[in-house]
Amino acid sequence: MQHYLSIHDIPDLETALQEMAILKQHPLITNHIGKGKTLGLLFFNSSLRTRLSTEKAARNLGMEVLILNVDRDSWQLEFEDGVVMDATKAEHIKEAAAVLSQYCDLLAIRAFPRLQDKAEDEAEQVLSAFAKYATVPIINMESSTAHPLQGLTDAFTITELAKTKIAQGKKLNVVLSWAPHPKALPHAVAHSFVKTMQRMDVHFKITHPQGYELNKQIVGNTPVVYDQKAAVVEADIIYVKNWSSYTEYGKVVSQDTSWQVDEALLQAAPQAKVMHCLPVRRNVVIVDAVLDSPASAVIQQAGNRTYAAQYVLQKLLTHGN
Amino acid sequence: MQHYLSIHDIPDLETALQEMAILKQHPLITNHIGKGKTLGLLFFNSSLRTRLSTEKAARNLGMEVLILNVDRDSWQLEFEDGVVMDATKAEHIKEAAAVLSQYCDLLAIRAFPRLQDKAEDEAEQVLSAFAKYATVPIINMESSTAHPLQGLTDAFTITELAKTKIAQGKKLNVVLSWAPHPKALPHAVAHSFVKTMQRMDVHFKITHPQGYELNKQIVGNTPVVYDQKAAVVEADIIYVKNWSSYTEYGKVVSQDTSWQVDEALLQAAPQAKVMHCLPVRRNVVIVDAVLDSPASAVIQQAGNRTYAAQYVLQKLLTHGN
Amino acid sequence: MQHYLSIHDIPDLETALQEMAILKQHPLITNHIGKGKTLGLLFFNSSLRTRLSTEKAARNLGMEVLILNVDRDSWQLEFEDGVVMDATKAEHIKEAAAVLSQYCDLLAIRAFPRLQDKAEDEAEQVLSAFAKYATVPIINMESSTAHPLQGLTDAFTITELAKTKIAQGKKLNVVLSWAPHPKALPHAVAHSFVKTMQRMDVHFKITHPQGYELNKQIVGNTPVVYDQKAAVVEADIIYVKNWSSYTEYGKVVSQDTSWQVDEALLQAAPQAKVMHCLPVRRNVVIVDAVLDSPASAVIQQAGNRTYAAQYVLQKLLTHGN
Repeated sequence: MQHYLSIHDIPDLETALQEMAILKQHPLITNHIGKGKTLGLLFFNSSLRTRLSTEKAARNLGMEVLILNVDRDSWQLEFEDGVVMDATKAEHIKEAAAVLSQYCDLLAIRAFPRLQDKAEDEAEQVLSAFAKYATVPIINMESSTAHPLQGLTDAFTITELAKTKIAQGKKLNVVLSWAPHPKALPHAVAHSFVKTMQRMDVHFKITHPQGYELNKQIVGNTPVVYDQKAAVVEADIIYVKNWSSYTEYGKVVSQDTSWQVDEALLQAAPQAKVMHCLPVRRNVVIVDAVLDSPASAVIQQAGNRTYAAQYVLQKLLTHGN
Repeated sequence: MQHYLSIHDIPDLETALQEMAILKQHPLITNHIGKGKTLGLLFFNSSLRTRLSTEKAARNLGMEVLILNVDRDSWQLEFEDGVVMDATKAEHIKEAAAVLSQYCDLLAIRAFPRLQDKAEDEAEQVLSAFAKYATVPIINMESSTAHPLQGLTDAFTITELAKTKIAQGKKLNVVLSWAPHPKALPHAVAHSFVKTMQRMDVHFKITHPQGYELNKQIVGNTPVVYDQKAAVVEADIIYVKNWSSYTEYGKVVSQDTSWQVDEALLQAAPQAKVMHCLPVRRNVVIVDAVLDSPASAVIQQAGNRTYAAQYVLQKLLTHGN
Repeated sequence: MQHYLSIHDIPDLETALQEMAILKQHPLITNHIGKGKTLGLLFFNSSLRTRLSTEKAARNLGMEVLILNVDRDSWQLEFEDGVVMDATKAEHIKEAAAVLSQYCDLLAIRAFPRLQDKAEDEAEQVLSAFAKYATVPIINMESSTAHPLQGLTDAFTITELAKTKIAQGKKLNVVLSWAPHPKALPHAVAHSFVKTMQRMDVHFKITHPQGYELNKQIVGNTPVVYDQKAAVVEADIIYVKNWSSYTEYGKVVSQDTSWQVDEALLQAAPQAKVMHCLPVRRNVVIVDAVLDSPASAVIQQAGNRTYAAQYVLQKLLTHGN
C-alpha cells in the first residue's frame, strides 16, 4: 500500500479484517511499530470520530501525532498550478506538502467537497495534490468522493455483527438505504460503502427514492430498488445514510420523510442490525426507538474506527517490510 | 469514586490532601498508572489553567490525551431527548458520549452556565448527559454549578499556606469574600469552595454585599457577614471571588467598588494569605499592591491545580483496585 | 543560554551548527534529555512550520508538549502595568506567565507585530513580558523584531548547501534580496538573517529598492546595493524575503515587480541556491520556474527548522549542566 485513498488500496480485504480482529483484541500488540514515527492530521473540516479514532490508533502504535486545523492554525493554501498568488492564499500546496513530509512520516487529510460542481469535487483537488506533492504516504480521512476508513470499518463491523451466520456459511443480506436529512450531504460514505460491499461475499442492494441515483460507474451491477420496504425484507444489515442528488449534483431534490428508518420498517427485517456512520440526526434519519434498541449497531461501528485506522497506519508504516 | 462531579465525590478529604502532597513532591511517582490509557478533554468554553494542568497531570500519569474543542473542532451537540434534529445540531449526546467512551478511558468536560435560567443551569444538562450516556468515568472541569478540581486545589493550598498554624493544632480562619467584576460570573467556584471548607476543620465565614446571597442549601449554617472589613479580621485565608446574583439569577445587582480587595482591607488581617482561582482582573477584583505582595498566594494556588487533577485521575484509573 | 530571544543568545554559532548536523543525522540521539519535561507552545498568530517543527523537535527530545492558541483557547491577556482591567482582557500577563511556568519547563511564544507603531513593536511587549514574568526559559517563535529559530536554521542550511566550497576554504557570497509581496510584512526574518550572516565568515550584502532600508543599527557596515542584478552576481546564496518599509514604518512604499526573483536574475548567479523562509507567494515573490528548479533550497531549509528548534530546546534544558 503506497497511499490509503480508496478502499481499493487494500489488496486483500479478508486478511485485513482478520488482522483488525486481532488489533481489537490486543490494541497495544503493535505498540513498537510507530516508535519514533510521526503522523500529521490535517483538517480542512470538522471531525469527531475520525479525529479521535485516528489519533488513538496512532498512539496505540506508539506514534507521535501532530494536528493542524489548516485554515485556523495555519495559512490558506493555494492548489492551482501557475497562479499569481497575490490574493488571500499565502502558501502553495507544493511547499506545504513537501514541508509537512519532512516533519511527518504519514499524512492524513480530511477535505470535504463543496457540492457545487461535480467535476471540481471529483477532481479531488486537495487529496490529489497531497498525494502528488507529499513524499510520504497519504491517508484519506474523508475526501470529496470517498471515506475509505469508514468503508473498512463497516466491512469489519458487518463481520462482527453477523459472525454466527457467516460461520454457518450463509450469505448475508446487506442493504444500503437512503434516508432524509435537512442538509445537502456528500456521497463519499455511500460510495465507499458500495465499493466495499462489492468486494465482500454478500447479497447487496441499494434503495433510495427516484432522483437519488448514485454514481453509475461505482454502482455497476449492484441492484437498485426504489421501494425501501421491499428492499429490506430479510436484511441482516441495513446501512442508513443520506446523500444529496448525484445527477442534480449537490441538490436536495426531495425530502421524503417516509424514508426515515423506523420500527415499522424494521418489522420487514426483524433480525436486521442498523448501521450509520454518525453523526446521525435523531428522528430525522433514524427514529429514537430504533437507535435506542438492540437493533442499532452504530456505537459498536464507531468504536471500530480505531482498528480500521490502526490497520491502515500499520500497513503504511511497514510497507515493504 | 465513580465520577468526579463534585468535591463530595472524594470520600476522605484529609487522606486526599496527604496523597496530593506526595504527588507534588514526586509528580512522576505514579507514571505507570496511566500507561496505555487515554484521557479525553472536552471544552465547550475557554480554559487556560484547567486545560493545561489537567493535561499535565495526565501526562505525569503516563496517559495519552485527546483534546476536543467541541463546537469548533466537531459537531454541535443536541442534549434534549426526543427532539427532531432538523436544525443546526448534528449529533446527539447519546451517540457522542457512547462513542467517546470507546476512544477514552476517562472523559473530562468543561461546560459553563448561560446564567439566563437558574433551573436550566442547575439541571447541569451537559455534565449530567455525559455522566448518563458515557460508559467511562466523567470529570467535571467546571460546570454550571461546581468546579470541584478548583475546590480540591483550594483545600490543598490552604493546608500548605497555614502549615505552621495547623501543626500547632490551631484552627484556621477562612473567609470567602465577594469582590466586584465588570461581567456577570457563575457561582461554581464559590459554591465548590463553600462545600469544601464545610468539610475542613476550619472557622469559615462568607462575606458579600446584600443581594449576593449564595444558594442557601449549600451555605447551610455557614455564617454570612455583610461587612467585609469585620469579616476578615484575623483571617488566615481570604478567598476572593466575584459571582453574580443568585436570587436575581445571573444579574449584576450592584458593583460596589469598596469591596475590591486592597491594602486597607488587609490591615485588618495582616497575616492573611489572599487566594483567587484566576483569571483575576487586576485593580477591579484585587489591587496590584495586594497581588504583587507576599500576601498573594494565587500563583502557588494555580500551580497546585496539577496535583488536584493528578489525584483525581489516579483515583478514577485505579477505582476498585 | 537563559532564554532564546535572539540569535545572539547562541554564544558559539559554529559549534551550534556542528551539533545541529549531528542531530539531523540522529534526531533521537538525545531522546532522554526531555523525559518528564514539558514545552508550552503559545500562539498569538498562525503557524505551520514553526508549530510543527518545534513540536517535532520537542518530541525528538522526549518532551511533552502543551499547545495554547492564546486568544482562541484561553483568555485575552493584558500586558500593560497598573491598568484597571474592567474591559475585555480577563487575565494579566503577570499571572499567565507565572502560572504557565508551573506547568511548563520551557515556554515558546509567537507574537507578530501590528506594524502600526515602530516604538510599540520594538518594545516587544509580549515577548518581554513573558521573559520578565515567567520563571522558566522563553523561546522566541517569531516576535515583532526577530525570528531567531529561522536565523539559526538559515545558517545551518547555508553550511549544508555550500559544503563543497566551504571545504575548499572559500568564502561564500550571500545576498539578502527584497522581493515584492501584496501585503505589508514584518522585518523579523530579514533582521534575524542579517544578524546571523554578520556572525558568519561570508561575504554578505543586502539588496532592495530605495525606501526599504532596514534598521541601520542592525545593518551596520553590511553593504547595501540598490541594483538587484548587480548584487547577485556570483552569489552562492540568494535569500529572498519581502518586508515593508522600516522608515515609513509598516508601509508598502513600492511594489516593484521587477524585483521578483526569476530565471533572468539567476543567469547572473548560475550556481546560486535560492532560500526563502516560507510561506512564499508563487509568481509574486519568486516565479514557479525558480521554485521548481534545483536552484530552490526552500524545502530543505524548512526541514532544517526541526534541528534548529531541537538544538535550542536541548541547550535550554541542559543549561548549566
